[in-house]
Amino acid sequence: MAIKIADYLFTRLRQLGVDSVFGVPGDYNLRLLDYVEPAGLHWSGNCNELNAAYAADGYARIKGLSALVTTFGVGELSAINGIAGAFTEKAPIVHIVGTPPRPKQEGRVLVHHTLGDGDYRHFANMAAHVTVAQANLTDPRLIPDQIDWVLKQAMVHSRPVYLEVPDDMPDVFVEAKNLETAIKLESAHQSESEKAALQQVLKKIYNAKQPLIIVDGDTRAMGITAEAEALVRMTGWPTWTTAFGRALINEQLPNVYGMYTGPFGDAVWKQYHDKADLIIILGPHYSDTNTSIFTTLPNPAVSVTFSINTIQIGDITYRDISNKSLQRLIDSLDGSHIPGAVGPPRPVITEKALDPSGCITQKHFWQKANRTSSYGSQTFSLPKNTRLFNAITWLSIGYMLPATLGATLAQRDRTKDDKTRAFLFIGDGSLQMSVQEISTMIREKLNIIIFVINNGGYTIERAIHGRNQKYNDVALWRHTQATSFFGADENHAKHNNFVIRNWGDLEEVVKSENVQGGSGVRVVEVFMERDDVRGALLPLMQARIANGD
Amino acid sequence: MAIKIADYLFTRLRQLGVDSVFGVPGDYNLRLLDYVEPAGLHWSGNCNELNAAYAADGYARIKGLSALVTTFGVGELSAINGIAGAFTEKAPIVHIVGTPPRPKQEGRVLVHHTLGDGDYRHFANMAAHVTVAQANLTDPRLIPDQIDWVLKQAMVHSRPVYLEVPDDMPDVFVEAKNLETAIKLESAHQSESEKAALQQVLKKIYNAKQPLIIVDGDTRAMGITAEAEALVRMTGWPTWTTAFGRALINEQLPNVYGMYTGPFGDAVWKQYHDKADLIIILGPHYSDTNTSIFTTLPNPAVSVTFSINTIQIGDITYRDISNKSLQRLIDSLDGSHIPGAVGPPRPVITEKALDPSGCITQKHFWQKANRTSSYGSQTFSLPKNTRLFNAITWLSIGYMLPATLGATLAQRDRTKDDKTRAFLFIGDGSLQMSVQEISTMIREKLNIIIFVINNGGYTIERAIHGRNQKYNDVALWRHTQATSFFGADENHAKHNNFVIRNWGDLEEVVKSENVQGGSGVRVVEVFMERDDVRGALLPLMQARIANGD
Repeated sequence: MAIKIADYLFTRLRQLGVDSVFGVPGDYNLRLLDYVEPAGLHWSGNCNELNAAYAADGYARIKGLSALVTTFGVGELSAINGIAGAFTEKAPIVHIVGTPPRPKQEGRVLVHHTLGDGDYRHFANMAAHVTVAQANLTDPRLIPDQIDWVLKQAMVHSRPVYLEVPDDMPDVFVEAKNLETAIKLESAHQSESEKAALQQVLKKIYNAKQPLIIVDGDTRAMGITAEAEALVRMTGWPTWTTAFGRALINEQLPNVYGMYTGPFGDAVWKQYHDKADLIIILGPHYSDTNTSIFTTLPNPAVSVTFSINTIQIGDITYRDISNKSLQRLIDSLDGSHIPGAVGPPRPVITEKALDPSGCITQKHFWQKANRTSSYGSQTFSLPKNTRLFNAITWLSIGYMLPATLGATLAQRDRTKDDKTRAFLFIGDGSLQMSVQEISTMIREKLNIIIFVINNGGYTIERAIHGRNQKYNDVALWRHTQATSFFGADENHAKHNNFVIRNWGDLEEVVKSENVQGGSGVRVVEVFMERDDVRGALLPLMQARIANGD
Repeated sequence: MAIKIADYLFTRLRQLGVDSVFGVPGDYNLRLLDYVEPAGLHWSGNCNELNAAYAADGYARIKGLSALVTTFGVGELSAINGIAGAFTEKAPIVHIVGTPPRPKQEGRVLVHHTLGDGDYRHFANMAAHVTVAQANLTDPRLIPDQIDWVLKQAMVHSRPVYLEVPDDMPDVFVEAKNLETAIKLESAHQSESEKAALQQVLKKIYNAKQPLIIVDGDTRAMGITAEAEALVRMTGWPTWTTAFGRALINEQLPNVYGMYTGPFGDAVWKQYHDKADLIIILGPHYSDTNTSIFTTLPNPAVSVTFSINTIQIGDITYRDISNKSLQRLIDSLDGSHIPGAVGPPRPVITEKALDPSGCITQKHFWQKANRTSSYGSQTFSLPKNTRLFNAITWLSIGYMLPATLGATLAQRDRTKDDKTRAFLFIGDGSLQMSVQEISTMIREKLNIIIFVINNGGYTIERAIHGRNQKYNDVALWRHTQATSFFGADENHAKHNNFVIRNWGDLEEVVKSENVQGGSGVRVVEVFMERDDVRGALLPLMQARIANGD
């Protein structure tokens, strides 16, 4: 049977769990876009392509795969920073680019959206730096296999891929037969290497005296979050996450301590880590910003590390490991032989009574709000079935808002629950990067409460350098006018904007009906002191202040 | 004498006429930014890096050179689409990227803003596709010459260049001697090839019977707009511009007809062009969108073409031509031997009386407003000393607003006149891409009147394909709330927002004190019919409607 290329592609995406597609129309992708909604996909058009890429990244981290459609040159290059972030932090986005029709390309015609030099390969060559697979769909005899091959790589690596669809191709017919078989990641076959590795791991587990588990962010990309939680439950061993690993397992389990920050955190926790004789690391992601500047890297001599296709035990790297390996380990574990382990004590958090007229401080805000944002949020426990989003290594300012759009839409697609809701905590500087995507949140009727931390500019940068420099200021906006400007129902906008200047305001806003219940996009502006920071940023800011910077 | 690298670089930029610098702070460029304002440069911080690149592009087109500072990875990739546009349309931006300090790079450390693979060259390799020269400032012995070499290429090619400044380099000392000599583009030497070419051109001019001149957009990049105008005045010959060449010469001269659009324009003009025996083309830029889909390409047999470093006469290309060649031609022209030429008649424009309650139409709006925006604006004449901005080939939607910021700032820097003002005509879809830069216009206290054409989405795309498709809709915003949201003085905002729904409104708004005089950012929302287009788009839209699309 024959099927049009666009239908083939979109059917495959549907099979792999993609329900919504992000992007921006452009004159080389319009014919392709005609096929999106007829294929049963929801088109979520964005204000610009970078925001669309960020949204697709957020979507992929919840649903396991996402799709982004842009146009040649102008569109795809606008998105490329978002694709690079998805590459770094392992979010599989299928980036589909509508390109000029084949005759124009073959004739090297100087059409618009080219660099004017007749070379149509520049942008694909740039994309190859930040995607794990690329294909240019020009030959119908190869296209079904090309698409499948590229999609499979997105799934195996959990990273973005790049597909060029010339404007004369969407309605060309190709063989449909492949579609009868789902794209499968791997066979049941277990490598000898994996068998050997797991035997070693079992021995280490049975002989451990002071063990611990670290759940890091790549457990998501490896598709082993359920298995990670099972191991944590089965062993009962003290467990920590990283910033990138936050909330990938249920943080309410009694043996889950929260995020480990080495010398920046609890000294007793650090002592336990330093003396551990077995550290099981799941899905490691060892960038400076995810390891408290490399201070939390576990001692290799006592480590067992499950990475994307290897298990490392001490000095030995076992390769060709499947993502079923952790499940196989659990299946072969004899619970009665797992030694118990008593973790360090937890710090007692005493909720300080705060003066209702006192300024909002970073130190107590997160306790009170008891939820998220990149630096501020790293020390709190989250309710079950909640996901926390943290950009950790790419750290592109502006990512969080569109990513929240994408993640919330993904969660709604996944649960089919219109009550799906999200809390976004965002700095005023970050908000300015991608603010217009609030209008897409409104258009998509998503339930999102945006806490804008108004602290007068790029506070993280101030902690690093230039505390009093003008370049770290941002323009002053009237944040509570955002939803009205971006087209929310006027009556809704009137009752869903809040300002918090002190603890009394916070109490009131958090209790209010429209925050506890309510729907749609709500904005809560929280005023904080300009130089108020916490965590790893605190000593930096203190040094700036001591220096008189 | 020794000088710090940052001071060397910024001194060079000042020497070359750069007064303001665009960009966004990031942790690898903060130490560099410390030197911007002490060097006498104005720091114009933007909301995001793509907007900053667009602004730098606008600035370069007015002042001849501009500077953009971003941070490694996240910042520079966000800007890269703007750099590509500047490459295509020849705007020389010096893109300065703050990169991680040398020890991190040499150690392949997995710091944030990298792809996590230890390879620090990805982004420079990507930038090489869209810049004409690149340098990585790592060795103080080479740096002054490297900087000069890169800046010279920006000027020679009138295209962007790429400079990496590792975070440990801004305060390293280098030799200052080069600074005593200005960077000069070329010697007084005239090539034999140029002599031969100009002799041929003289002959052609003296023997012409039906000559004409076309002023295209690259005359700006070639730095020959004054010479172009001199030739047009001296010959008195019928002269046309292209879309890209609009307003580069004084369009009020009696022999300047306006924009030539071949079969889409006046038939009598086309007849004159088709029968011409000499066509002098200055600064050709032959993309589909600048040649009415290649229909206006002049007959090579009768053409003399001055390009960036060649003169083409018929089949022969003369190379190594300097940008002084046109001036030399003018100097050697004997005015008494230049044949006169009577051009075709001009169409008589009768101003139709319009019903004050009638809807605003594309056809008459531009006559009435008698000013700009990409497609709409292409057929009007402009007052003297006015520049018209038209993206023509890269055509990145969202470019116009930040480019207007950059161009207006450049004009103010150039004239030192606080009354400098600009009119921006922008579609609602384009506005959504980069709207937040309105806040930078406000912060910079620029006088800009923004006409938002509210026609319910991507109308140009509708003319191309998908006239009634949902993907060509955009979210509905409350445009007249923009300046208040983005932080304008509340009293100013109250009196500087206007809505035009009919000809009566237009009359009133155009006459109003705050539009005729006034200051700051003003928004005029103009409602038009969704499918109302003109020019080359009109037959496309008519075909869509006839098709029932």
